[in-house]
Amino acid sequence: MKKDTLIARYRKKTPKSATLFAKSAKFHVNGVSHNIRFFEPYPFVTRSAGGKFLTDVDENKYTDYWMGHWSLILGHVPDSVKSVVAEQLENGWMHGTVNEPTIKLSDTIQKAVPAAEKIRYVTSGTEATMYAVRLARSATKRKVIAKIDGGWHGYTSDLLKTVNWPFSESESSGLTDENHIVSIPYNDLEESIAILDSVRNDLAGVIMEPVLGGGGCIPATSEYIRGIQETVHKNDSMFILDEIVTGFRFRYGCLYPTMKLKPDIITLGKIVGGGFPIGVICGSDDIMKYADATKFAKSQRSYVGGGTFSANPASMVAGLETLQRLKVGSGRIYSKINRVGDGARRRLAKTFDGKVTVTGKGSLFMTHFTRGRTDEVVNAAQAAECDTGLLARYHFKMIAQDNIFFLPGKLGAISYAHGDADVKGMVAASQEFMENNKI
Amino acid sequence: MKKDTLIARYRKKTPKSATLFAKSAKFHVNGVSHNIRFFEPYPFVTRSAGGKFLTDVDENKYTDYWMGHWSLILGHVPDSVKSVVAEQLENGWMHGTVNEPTIKLSDTIQKAVPAAEKIRYVTSGTEATMYAVRLARSATKRKVIAKIDGGWHGYTSDLLKTVNWPFSESESSGLTDENHIVSIPYNDLEESIAILDSVRNDLAGVIMEPVLGGGGCIPATSEYIRGIQETVHKNDSMFILDEIVTGFRFRYGCLYPTMKLKPDIITLGKIVGGGFPIGVICGSDDIMKYADATKFAKSQRSYVGGGTFSANPASMVAGLETLQRLKVGSGRIYSKINRVGDGARRRLAKTFDGKVTVTGKGSLFMTHFTRGRTDEVVNAAQAAECDTGLLARYHFKMIAQDNIFFLPGKLGAISYAHGDADVKGMVAASQEFMENNKI
Repeated sequence: MKKDTLIARYRKKTPKSATLFAKSAKFHVNGVSHNIRFFEPYPFVTRSAGGKFLTDVDENKYTDYWMGHWSLILGHVPDSVKSVVAEQLENGWMHGTVNEPTIKLSDTIQKAVPAAEKIRYVTSGTEATMYAVRLARSATKRKVIAKIDGGWHGYTSDLLKTVNWPFSESESSGLTDENHIVSIPYNDLEESIAILDSVRNDLAGVIMEPVLGGGGCIPATSEYIRGIQETVHKNDSMFILDEIVTGFRFRYGCLYPTMKLKPDIITLGKIVGGGFPIGVICGSDDIMKYADATKFAKSQRSYVGGGTFSANPASMVAGLETLQRLKVGSGRIYSKINRVGDGARRRLAKTFDGKVTVTGKGSLFMTHFTRGRTDEVVNAAQAAECDTGLLARYHFKMIAQDNIFFLPGKLGAISYAHGDADVKGMVAASQEFMENNKI
Repeated sequence: MKKDTLIARYRKKTPKSATLFAKSAKFHVNGVSHNIRFFEPYPFVTRSAGGKFLTDVDENKYTDYWMGHWSLILGHVPDSVKSVVAEQLENGWMHGTVNEPTIKLSDTIQKAVPAAEKIRYVTSGTEATMYAVRLARSATKRKVIAKIDGGWHGYTSDLLKTVNWPFSESESSGLTDENHIVSIPYNDLEESIAILDSVRNDLAGVIMEPVLGGGGCIPATSEYIRGIQETVHKNDSMFILDEIVTGFRFRYGCLYPTMKLKPDIITLGKIVGGGFPIGVICGSDDIMKYADATKFAKSQRSYVGGGTFSANPASMVAGLETLQRLKVGSGRIYSKINRVGDGARRRLAKTFDGKVTVTGKGSLFMTHFTRGRTDEVVNAAQAAECDTGLLARYHFKMIAQDNIFFLPGKLGAISYAHGDADVKGMVAASQEFMENNKI
């Protein structure tokens, strides 16, 4: 089906979304409350979600691989999570004081993530990485933070650089302090070390994900990530591991122990809140102590607030129940979603027969339409060199024609509600896309 | 009752809290997930909340004036808000896509806040002010932001300066860009204008609250706030009004129209989320357009993300139902809570017979134990000169002895669940405190 035909088909099946989105555009910049949620001609408006499905206001039911920005590992509206939150509603969703579910969630996280000697909750990943960076600077009394080209850690001003291609251009107007951020090329150890060495005297830390998320769903090589950590630690800088996407995604706990890493600060989010707003900063006592406003004078402490909604009981019980479900079903849940994810990568690669590189790990996967010199996708620059327009068309085709939802251009996440039959359907839709577009 | 006796009494009635808090301290810096939630000897642990009450794990029931960081204007767990959220749970709390409740909430906010030509949701007040400042810098192509001495706008690195006394000291280690923030003395127009003039060529904007919140619950004089706005607008800078605390607190809408102000950017939060995580950035089309990532190149746009949890359906329906309740009951609800608040201020002032200055407005109030040269409290420096230790003891006495909860040292908020009888009880407790402490 041609692009215009697809758009016509999408419009035909989403008339109520069209009307509502036109209304949304009166109130919201570009009609959305998050840049990436917009796609042409207009995004459908969701009415409800359950299991693996999103249902829009026109009653179209999509198999969802976006899964709430990848936060819903058990699928939409898992019964037990719904129940504990409903029960919590009776007892209040906003105490503004210390509550017991927070203590239980921290106990649970600490047992699964031993590096989390101390934990602080915030309300978003953006807040978590902001505080992680602040702590690294406080602990080292240095200012420069290094990040990965294409690394995405939320919108905090402290890390808003080299997110999208071209990395040489600023990400935004209105930023005032980009010079305290340096950026290193992913999976290129030699060049990265050279850059880190060049700022060694003022290097507070490096922040990175073990699997580059927004930048292309690309796992770090073991050699690279361990080499970066070694360089950082030799320099008495902080190794900040952003596991907001990867924490509890591939196994019950973080990814770092499987890579034999010893991060100083870890950020978590998404899955550990069960789909309710959360961000988490974890680290050793030695580093987290700087956040103790009762021990340090104000110019010595690291001011880590928390925020009005930090550790709110709704997020805490939802996160706790999600982790308990994952723990009880640990072998079963992770082996299933990792297996389904492996199958998706293998089958997509086979279907597109050399025209794509499918990256990812476990239940996360992303299809890159390679072009140009190489089919290698080991960093965000290579991911950006791929035909991202074609990727968006491919995703839109599945929305319009097959009722399969990927946020166009973004990576897909398998949840426990998905199965092999879903992958089979997605692969068939992909096959058809390839044939019709003569890829 | 003496301090030691009070502490003994508190310990005696909160043994389960003591045990749980000791456990919390194993996981959390200073035992809490938000600095201000700690007080000596340990904060009680909340089990449930309802109406005007917080109930701790030892079954002590406190009349609550903290009210979820002042976000719960209808009281804890209002039935109708609980119902709409419970219903939303069935349809999913985290779609990660456009949803209809967002459109309805924006429609409702825009009708009540005409300056909100465009709206974007984020997950916390800290994120809202970060983006507001970024937008002001983008729109003006300037870098300096002015804030008020003692002004509190969350923990964003962009505004972390001159929050707590002494204002000359940094608020935190680990900050790298304090030089782009200047600070002006509250309610001192002449001096403020002189400072603003000194940075006029690079002044992107001023951010302030119409009622200084964390800095002492002090309304801006009409002359001051209008003078600042005039100075800012003459200079083609942005006037950012932070109504996170004041929006929908005193009337159905913001405070700015009653002060004949024309803010360029407004931030909202707290009440408009019904106690669920929210932050809101509102402004004119002309300014908000910079957030449109489809219209501007990446170095020209103002990168205003939203975040994973932005406009999540749970926060949206809770906020919408809260505003609908406030609208329907507008006359009744606001006239009641404003009247009860007026009564609280008047009676406290009378009880403490010249030893305190009670500041505030409508349903917000704060007791300052004046000392030294003056009993005037019109800015944060004067609030800090008051006997804040005595204020914390006064609040703790009420927690320990009277089952009345103010977060020690913080301002109090009347909700619709409170009544004159509650104020009477609080005043009696205050009377006793004064007599026993020979104030």
